[in-house]
Amino acid sequence: SMPGMMDTVLNIDDKDALLTAARQIFNSWDNPEAVEYRSLNNIPPDLGTAAVVQAMVFGNLDQNSGTGVVFTRNPSTGEPGLFGEYLMQAQGEDLVSGEKTPTPIATLKEQMPGVYAELEEVARNFEKHFRDMQDIEFTVEAGKLYILQTRSGKRSGPAAVKLAVDMVGEGLLSREEAILRVTPEDMKALLHKRLKSPEKAKALTRGLNASPGAATGIVIFDPAEAAQLAKKGNAVILVRPETSPDDIQGIAAAEGVVTSRGGMTSHAALVARGMGKPCVCGAEEMEVDLAAEKFKAGGQVVSKGDEITIDGTSGKVYLGVLPVIEAELIPELGVLLGWADGFKRLGVKANVDTAEGIVNIKRFGAEGVGLCRTERQFNAPEPLSVIREFILADTPEDKTKAIDKLRELQRRDFVALFKALDGLPIIIRLLDLPLHEFLPPESMADSPKMKERIADLKEVNPMLGHRGVRLGTTSPEIYQMQVEAIESAKAEVDADVSIMIPQVIMAAELLPIKRMIKDKTIKFGTMMETVRACLEAEKLAEVVDFISFGTNDLTQAVFSFSREDAEKKFLAAYLEKGILEHNPFEVVDEKGVGSLMATTIFRARTGWPQLEVGVCGEHGGEPQSVKFFHGIGADYVSCSPFRVPAAKLVAAQAVLEERGRKRAG
Amino acid sequence: SMPGMMDTVLNIDDKDALLTAARQIFNSWDNPEAVEYRSLNNIPPDLGTAAVVQAMVFGNLDQNSGTGVVFTRNPSTGEPGLFGEYLMQAQGEDLVSGEKTPTPIATLKEQMPGVYAELEEVARNFEKHFRDMQDIEFTVEAGKLYILQTRSGKRSGPAAVKLAVDMVGEGLLSREEAILRVTPEDMKALLHKRLKSPEKAKALTRGLNASPGAATGIVIFDPAEAAQLAKKGNAVILVRPETSPDDIQGIAAAEGVVTSRGGMTSHAALVARGMGKPCVCGAEEMEVDLAAEKFKAGGQVVSKGDEITIDGTSGKVYLGVLPVIEAELIPELGVLLGWADGFKRLGVKANVDTAEGIVNIKRFGAEGVGLCRTERQFNAPEPLSVIREFILADTPEDKTKAIDKLRELQRRDFVALFKALDGLPIIIRLLDLPLHEFLPPESMADSPKMKERIADLKEVNPMLGHRGVRLGTTSPEIYQMQVEAIESAKAEVDADVSIMIPQVIMAAELLPIKRMIKDKTIKFGTMMETVRACLEAEKLAEVVDFISFGTNDLTQAVFSFSREDAEKKFLAAYLEKGILEHNPFEVVDEKGVGSLMATTIFRARTGWPQLEVGVCGEHGGEPQSVKFFHGIGADYVSCSPFRVPAAKLVAAQAVLEERGRKRAG
Repeated sequence: SMPGMMDTVLNIDDKDALLTAARQIFNSWDNPEAVEYRSLNNIPPDLGTAAVVQAMVFGNLDQNSGTGVVFTRNPSTGEPGLFGEYLMQAQGEDLVSGEKTPTPIATLKEQMPGVYAELEEVARNFEKHFRDMQDIEFTVEAGKLYILQTRSGKRSGPAAVKLAVDMVGEGLLSREEAILRVTPEDMKALLHKRLKSPEKAKALTRGLNASPGAATGIVIFDPAEAAQLAKKGNAVILVRPETSPDDIQGIAAAEGVVTSRGGMTSHAALVARGMGKPCVCGAEEMEVDLAAEKFKAGGQVVSKGDEITIDGTSGKVYLGVLPVIEAELIPELGVLLGWADGFKRLGVKANVDTAEGIVNIKRFGAEGVGLCRTERQFNAPEPLSVIREFILADTPEDKTKAIDKLRELQRRDFVALFKALDGLPIIIRLLDLPLHEFLPPESMADSPKMKERIADLKEVNPMLGHRGVRLGTTSPEIYQMQVEAIESAKAEVDADVSIMIPQVIMAAELLPIKRMIKDKTIKFGTMMETVRACLEAEKLAEVVDFISFGTNDLTQAVFSFSREDAEKKFLAAYLEKGILEHNPFEVVDEKGVGSLMATTIFRARTGWPQLEVGVCGEHGGEPQSVKFFHGIGADYVSCSPFRVPAAKLVAAQAVLEERGRKRAG
Repeated sequence: SMPGMMDTVLNIDDKDALLTAARQIFNSWDNPEAVEYRSLNNIPPDLGTAAVVQAMVFGNLDQNSGTGVVFTRNPSTGEPGLFGEYLMQAQGEDLVSGEKTPTPIATLKEQMPGVYAELEEVARNFEKHFRDMQDIEFTVEAGKLYILQTRSGKRSGPAAVKLAVDMVGEGLLSREEAILRVTPEDMKALLHKRLKSPEKAKALTRGLNASPGAATGIVIFDPAEAAQLAKKGNAVILVRPETSPDDIQGIAAAEGVVTSRGGMTSHAALVARGMGKPCVCGAEEMEVDLAAEKFKAGGQVVSKGDEITIDGTSGKVYLGVLPVIEAELIPELGVLLGWADGFKRLGVKANVDTAEGIVNIKRFGAEGVGLCRTERQFNAPEPLSVIREFILADTPEDKTKAIDKLRELQRRDFVALFKALDGLPIIIRLLDLPLHEFLPPESMADSPKMKERIADLKEVNPMLGHRGVRLGTTSPEIYQMQVEAIESAKAEVDADVSIMIPQVIMAAELLPIKRMIKDKTIKFGTMMETVRACLEAEKLAEVVDFISFGTNDLTQAVFSFSREDAEKKFLAAYLEKGILEHNPFEVVDEKGVGSLMATTIFRARTGWPQLEVGVCGEHGGEPQSVKFFHGIGADYVSCSPFRVPAAKLVAAQAVLEERGRKRAG
């Protein structure tokens, strides 16, 4: 029952008491708890309530009496069969108060098989009537079954999926209904490892929930050591103040990552999300002492080798090993997503950077790679040292030498990628990062020249600096090298390849790069992640085969918010004061960024109605945003592979909801 | 004559030679020089050329012959009377070749007063006919005057203004024509000191031309020493790697500033422009050694105390003292601007931060203060130390104490400002800078707490960080204090005050600040400098009395360019390759930023047709941009006081050109 509503036991002959009670119930409609509940759950205030007068039954009457709560199926797994508890010789309130310990519902089957069979039949009928799993309260009085209440039962993610699919098989639901019944949160819960009972443990500290999932391991501070220990089969959690490209092997080897600095787009967060690895970032209360290989948090000192558990879904860090539940990729998921594919209009691709990542594309049913970030390939030790050679080169000859080495390394990467893809299409984004991102921090420069270059390349606002196509314009040899590497890899292993350019503001930037591409089967596109590009969408559409919105950078530009700084310094206040409803970096800002996107699509398609339009920012995996992108006419979204199932589900729901509105309106 | 055109001397009886020469002239229309000249000067290629056949006269015939060039007025000052050179017994080519030295035109008056009088009459007639100052080539053959050519004469800025005004007095021009005759460059040249003959000197090095004008002085590296020496009457040029708020007294005391780092919006550039002081920024080839008090540039070592000359108009730095010409504020300027006021629709205000700056408002005829940046007031030593107290405060009590002190300091500043304004309106922008801008560099932190706060407040992209209304939202006590200081100053000295909020993205940010303002005669407005604000202009218009575009930040947001990084790293390549026609931070990007502004004004005025719209970015003083802002319906621009005359001129020209198009169309 709703909070503020009440159950009252009265003598049926005491009319005054009955009237008073009924009046109390009607009045309770306006008590503060009820008002708040309605407002939270969007229940109209003029709906009114009812007073139900029922005859009382007594579960504590005799030995053949009792009370219980059952789900019509297992709410954790969705397995068929009654699931619940039974308490002999007791009333409902005894169950609720916890004073007596109930037994599993099987007890009832042993004691009163007839009543149990009747309960099973009631459950079947209720499911047939309500077309959903039910959560039923019942009482047995002197061997006779009374049903007190039934409602739809709360369920876990896996149960929601299994239930929905099973009920289609049982003829209870249509496929459309099954798809609408499952929530994106159910999908998410299905895919990441999670803590079995986080409510039972006290966290050491809490940071940003940068990449979901739970992980357990020993604390290691040195990335190289983490890599070594992992090779020997140790589960390792890498703990750092922050991470840099030099740490990539350590991150790859670790079960999860914790940093004391950095936000949702810090290096650690991006890399961990890309790898589908749990990550807690910016746990600012944590004091990391790299020299002593210790960290202090929640009043405790944790040393190298101590075991910790991290929950990237909540951002919490725990001392010791907490039980973790594996992700369950149940077969019903594949069935449901197959149905979703049949309904949805929006394509769902995944952001994957390396050949190793392609396995997740297939596992989660992505329809290709919507964003392959080539800078990630530079982060392996060999290409990283070569790109540093390029940056430090003094003569054109040295530059050319470095470029030649890079071309070969990139070619190898692309060959591996194209093989792994096995026919799936891929959109490769040329280098986006500014060059200084490939250099170590100033304090770790190993030569005066390195130090000098670090100072030269330093920027006041790197997010708005010398990166993407700007670098491609001042140093065209880099993009030329990447195009050549892609073309020669494609000559070796044929693939469905598109090349995409980041940070574009106008068509004039694209033309010289388009001319670099000799293989005319390669499609050419631009990111839409600057406002300037959106404002000249008509002209960009003349030059490209497709456009793809980078909604993270576009949101930064539209808001003039640096995501990292905003999430650390002031976004919390904006959400708390209700100035913003959502973090615009998680849920797309429909009125600002979204309206600009809609106008952009309209303009771009004015001359080119068939122009392909994608979204490859992280919003592409966020359910509410995916629905919005469907609505403004995008052709596909591309997101982390782990978010693909939820995106597919929502894309199908969007179509079904449209049909519903059409029919209703 | 146009390049590629030619003068040829022939015997009139040699018909063949005459025909060949005429043919050469007609063919020369398509020679490469002529084609380029036409394209540069926008001359249609199908206009064609003419061959003029003239009888030859001989300036070298006898003692009563000669040749000369005269301007009908002095082209440097605009003073009336012939001005030019005469060469006895010579032909035109002798004058051009420089082999013989000409004498002033007065020589002709002495030698042949009748010819001189005739030349004067010819000059008067030409001026009457062409209605402009003429540049005349003539030859005297045996005491008889022949005019070879006449054309409009090139003139200096002051001459252009004086000429135009004088010619109205003489009935040669209408006021409208006088306004259209003067260029914004003429205005600029009028206002800044300049090098007398920069072409004669070799620069040591060149940086960004951050603030125009020329200055000479001794090199000083220490700002405090600069301030002391200036007090004793020394002309000082402050040379620094870069400047910070701590250096403000030194900048104020110096004749000009040179920095080896930092772009067009660096601290030094902004402060120097605000003060109308020459500044060369980001002279990157210069090596500044603060410890040794020396700098190296152009292969030379310059030490403290050495004299240098800087030219902020060209960005050049010279060794030694070069002759500098003072700005000439001629009375005709006031007359011309008075006429401009009568025609123009666009208001022209000035950006001024302190009471001392108000003198320039009046000097240059600005119609009030369109932007008063309150952070500049914090940069004086006393408020700077108090705002640091606020930033370092641990307890609410300490914070309140600091805020109370700041309120009193601000109140005093505003009282002084309001007195100086003497009735002119002022728009005060509440604090925009992030707090870390008020702290010294990390290396100069004088306490562990200071060091810690510097680390806390550090941002990845400060341009998109915790500043403006974001700071006003998380620390409302700062804006509250500023509002109270303004209100109590206004209670003491009445003034026409508006309050404006920076970095706004949505109406919800404005409401709590609007509620702080108790005095209902104070107008309330928002900067439009984020794209998000432009996209919800309708809603912002509901809340404010006026909006004012901050075109510098808006350009950064639309382009995703950090101005400082862009100007240092890649804008030069964009201009060189022709991707961009202008630096968008100097000339407003009409197709991108400009079209967004136009849409914004349309949306904002949809519900509120009377909404006041201003532009207070630096573009507000750039002629091409001012014309654009006029065209999209802005009510006023606000710029550096030194740019006010040019802005007024252009605003009037825009109206007159519109009338011209109406009549023509």
